[in-house]
Amino acid sequence: MSDTIRFFGLGLGPGNPDYMTVRARRVLESADRLVHFCKRGRRGNARTIADAIVGENPEREIALVYPVTTEIPADHPDYAAALNPFYEEATAQLLAEIEAGRTVAVLCEGDPFFYGSFMHLWWRLKDKVPTEVVPAVSGMSGAWTRAGAPITWGDDVLTVVPGTLPEAELMRRLSSTDAAVVMKLGRNLPKVRAALKSAGLLERAIYVERATMAEERIIPLPVLPDDFDAPYFSLIIVPGQGRRV
Amino acid sequence: MSDTIRFFGLGLGPGNPDYMTVRARRVLESADRLVHFCKRGRRGNARTIADAIVGENPEREIALVYPVTTEIPADHPDYAAALNPFYEEATAQLLAEIEAGRTVAVLCEGDPFFYGSFMHLWWRLKDKVPTEVVPAVSGMSGAWTRAGAPITWGDDVLTVVPGTLPEAELMRRLSSTDAAVVMKLGRNLPKVRAALKSAGLLERAIYVERATMAEERIIPLPVLPDDFDAPYFSLIIVPGQGRRV
Repeated sequence: MSDTIRFFGLGLGPGNPDYMTVRARRVLESADRLVHFCKRGRRGNARTIADAIVGENPEREIALVYPVTTEIPADHPDYAAALNPFYEEATAQLLAEIEAGRTVAVLCEGDPFFYGSFMHLWWRLKDKVPTEVVPAVSGMSGAWTRAGAPITWGDDVLTVVPGTLPEAELMRRLSSTDAAVVMKLGRNLPKVRAALKSAGLLERAIYVERATMAEERIIPLPVLPDDFDAPYFSLIIVPGQGRRV
Repeated sequence: MSDTIRFFGLGLGPGNPDYMTVRARRVLESADRLVHFCKRGRRGNARTIADAIVGENPEREIALVYPVTTEIPADHPDYAAALNPFYEEATAQLLAEIEAGRTVAVLCEGDPFFYGSFMHLWWRLKDKVPTEVVPAVSGMSGAWTRAGAPITWGDDVLTVVPGTLPEAELMRRLSSTDAAVVMKLGRNLPKVRAALKSAGLLERAIYVERATMAEERIIPLPVLPDDFDAPYFSLIIVPGQGRRV
């Protein structure tokens, strides 16, 4: 945690500012530039989490606005074609800040090295500038904690799957695990629900949205309405049932 | 986070006190009783993590000393026969403290609801006393952060397996995942190494011990000596290689 570090991947945790680490708070207060990802016309979730600690200050803020990609499947060549220049330009922008002597902190919802957008900046910059990644309470940990549902007992196997996978693959993976977390829900909810049902896990599954925040919603999956509109950052947990002594 | 809560499952994170949450620090400072699990004659890891914030104060301390079970496989009936009375007695002891009006915090290494011993107290007490579980940065997150190894990219599937499983099952599960974490290593290391080799993952595997602490060790698995003595709380990570754009 040397003073010469100028580039930070700053995990802010699941949402409640009390669940930020002491280290994250300190970097948040001291960094010259606070970077966050967002969709056009919106503030990013990570920046909103930071509100409790640092108010908006236009001079400190760098918003990285995603190009519109929600209509393009992530495995389509057009997806990479749209996102690659976005990350390249963002990298150049942050590198210019760092070379001008400023410290740059990329705010991350959850844990930076667990499905984080930050990772795409990190691997472009890691060999160029001294970097510190600050780990955080993951969104899934916030979810199982607030649901009152210990996720793994004894020798339970935990499988974490993105809801973006095909239904047959989801079904296969969910059928052969003791505990599960399904990430990246959003529009994948009907498909994920069908896969959980086929895997015999519907009754144990719990839908969790914005865990640890004021707008938190925790709903057993069997009673979630069929037409429910799940945000991308919601998830489903299936707690394990392993050894209790 | 009401004031009437008297029983806390207090996640302290992977080891570095800077990675404790703001909430964990506050409860650590204010709880009347600090409970930790340990082996006979030793201080527990969780209590050691707390040292940076709260010094030893005999009046506040409750050490729960595990009965000797390291020689008994966890799936053997004698294991439950030894541990069940231990957890029952501990529960009664903590309940007496709580009923006397004191606040009781069980210190947990890592995240309380992720393979935590605390869970065995929690399910005995959760319907009897108001309880708060404070989530934490997990040990595995500390490990992949310090190893400089983002664990999941894009649509990667992550499988978390305890090293206690049979070699054939480990091999099967490791063969079919994008990224993996093997927990509970200790004496299981030779078996886990063999399973990773059979699964074709040896070259990508990284051994991590006491991540984020002063005594941290991070060693690529292929160069770890065959007779290496791994502690129980060490782990192996296999970073995913998913979509980078």
